[in-house]
Amino acid sequence: MSSGEDDLIARYFKPLATDPGAFGLIDDAAILKGSTDDLVVTTDAIVEGVHFLADDPPDTVARKALRVNLSDVAAKGAEPAGFVLTLALREVNDTWLAPFARALGEDATGFACPLLGGDTVSTPGPLMISVTAFGRVPAGRMVRRSGASAGDAVFVTGSIGDAMLGLAAARAGAMLQLDVASHGALVSRYRVPQPRTGLARAVRDHASAAMDVSDGLAGDLAKLCKASGLSAEIGLEQIPVSPLAAILLAAKATTIEALIAGGDDYEILCTVPEARVAAFAAAARAADVAATRIGSIRSGEGLPRFIGADGREIVLKRSSYSHF
Amino acid sequence: MSSGEDDLIARYFKPLATDPGAFGLIDDAAILKGSTDDLVVTTDAIVEGVHFLADDPPDTVARKALRVNLSDVAAKGAEPAGFVLTLALREVNDTWLAPFARALGEDATGFACPLLGGDTVSTPGPLMISVTAFGRVPAGRMVRRSGASAGDAVFVTGSIGDAMLGLAAARAGAMLQLDVASHGALVSRYRVPQPRTGLARAVRDHASAAMDVSDGLAGDLAKLCKASGLSAEIGLEQIPVSPLAAILLAAKATTIEALIAGGDDYEILCTVPEARVAAFAAAARAADVAATRIGSIRSGEGLPRFIGADGREIVLKRSSYSHF
Repeated sequence: MSSGEDDLIARYFKPLATDPGAFGLIDDAAILKGSTDDLVVTTDAIVEGVHFLADDPPDTVARKALRVNLSDVAAKGAEPAGFVLTLALREVNDTWLAPFARALGEDATGFACPLLGGDTVSTPGPLMISVTAFGRVPAGRMVRRSGASAGDAVFVTGSIGDAMLGLAAARAGAMLQLDVASHGALVSRYRVPQPRTGLARAVRDHASAAMDVSDGLAGDLAKLCKASGLSAEIGLEQIPVSPLAAILLAAKATTIEALIAGGDDYEILCTVPEARVAAFAAAARAADVAATRIGSIRSGEGLPRFIGADGREIVLKRSSYSHF
Repeated sequence: MSSGEDDLIARYFKPLATDPGAFGLIDDAAILKGSTDDLVVTTDAIVEGVHFLADDPPDTVARKALRVNLSDVAAKGAEPAGFVLTLALREVNDTWLAPFARALGEDATGFACPLLGGDTVSTPGPLMISVTAFGRVPAGRMVRRSGASAGDAVFVTGSIGDAMLGLAAARAGAMLQLDVASHGALVSRYRVPQPRTGLARAVRDHASAAMDVSDGLAGDLAKLCKASGLSAEIGLEQIPVSPLAAILLAAKATTIEALIAGGDDYEILCTVPEARVAAFAAAARAADVAATRIGSIRSGEGLPRFIGADGREIVLKRSSYSHF
């Protein structure tokens, strides 16, 4: 009496459900064991044609679905604890599902975030993958958006804008200014984000406020400032960009405004009290995560100001990605 | 710098986020406070055209999305603790969203299951609502599918098959055998399930195995038996059907086979050791939830057997709903 749905789960996802709380995916629910830690809960979905492209390789789609959630977990200062997966599929296509499940399993292992359960449904529409991920932090220690104070340093990890360039590159098929390897590197940045899991402890120990940058640095910083009731002053020259983005900037193929308004970076944006800056920077180095100071939190409730090398403020036309 | 997406969340869903762990939906994640209880996690999605119809009223869609998950929580013997919501929308349609959010809020309050967070994404395809719900049980007390023993009584709550009839009625527009009120009552059973939250404590205290009936009683019982390594013998005459279903059965407009193979009942199926049957039945009465004994668990690993009033076994052609 087994169904296609049960077969699909048994074939592709049961091998991933190694956590005892997953009950081998044959129960209706999973268990997260009780603990004095707080459980951080976050949910992010990705939709074909919106968050990934129809011809993106299935392994990259799997990794992105999990990693956009792991990025939130890390930005809150939490350690991954597990996830549940909802998969809306048009059909059971083994050629697509096998690499999808394999890559998901690799990331679940690599990030110590086991698959706990899920739901598989049919849809006549685009593929959609919804993940709810869990993290643990000591009670009361989740790092919120709202904790910044005037004078705190503003840090961002990695580099900003590559994913936006990668999406443009994937859509264009080729970009005049780039060789094939560079083109591929940018597309990879769009397809497979790198959650800053290694920085979670440093964020928890030192940051006053934090969030992940998913809808564009400028807009996300504005959200953090608004939640904290403050503003910020950012040096455009301080914003970390990759060597490839720097080449495209120099060739005037993109602008810094576009890079900081583009989505899909999945870097951590956080604020650190001045007295903790040295310790945070040292912890980031120890975790091997690049963290760059890009400015400071300021009093007032205006939008964050972005200042160019010439001291002039740049006014942004568009600060972030919105679905609607 | 607020976006349409942020506005949508602030307008419709922030009023629902009354739990302190939801942080008013302005953070990237929510908190479930640490506790010695185990946290039960379940996730179920509903898709337009698959789990609900395009012209189903938005308030019923909201209630169904949450309730199918609350049904799982109750079947595991757990008390609701909160939920996160992923909403994939084609557009921001206030006429649809306002009643959707209002009904979701009413159910969140009514079932003591607060909205903790979510994600809203755009899709070119069908509406999809994915919910991950949480429940709490004392450590180690989640009721699994796999705990049944030979001789245990098999119970099911409410009545079986109305939702299947309701879907048929909704699709047909009218059914010859039914007056308008009866037609509407069956359609309501399809659109708005009644999770048996009140029975959770009795299930936890007395049931050896439990699950919710969502894909058809026959197929779901087979899953419970398989997980327990056992079989069952069910009296077809004992299976509870509503007065309306009884009328349709008498008119030969449906069959008992169809009723027990149809989906969307969202009743609790559980097994209770003989020594606990009286206490379970008393607890169900005290909770005002109808629970009917329909048969017994048997040794062996064959499919559950369904026996008619004449002592003859009915062989089912199709036992449950599968997406693929």
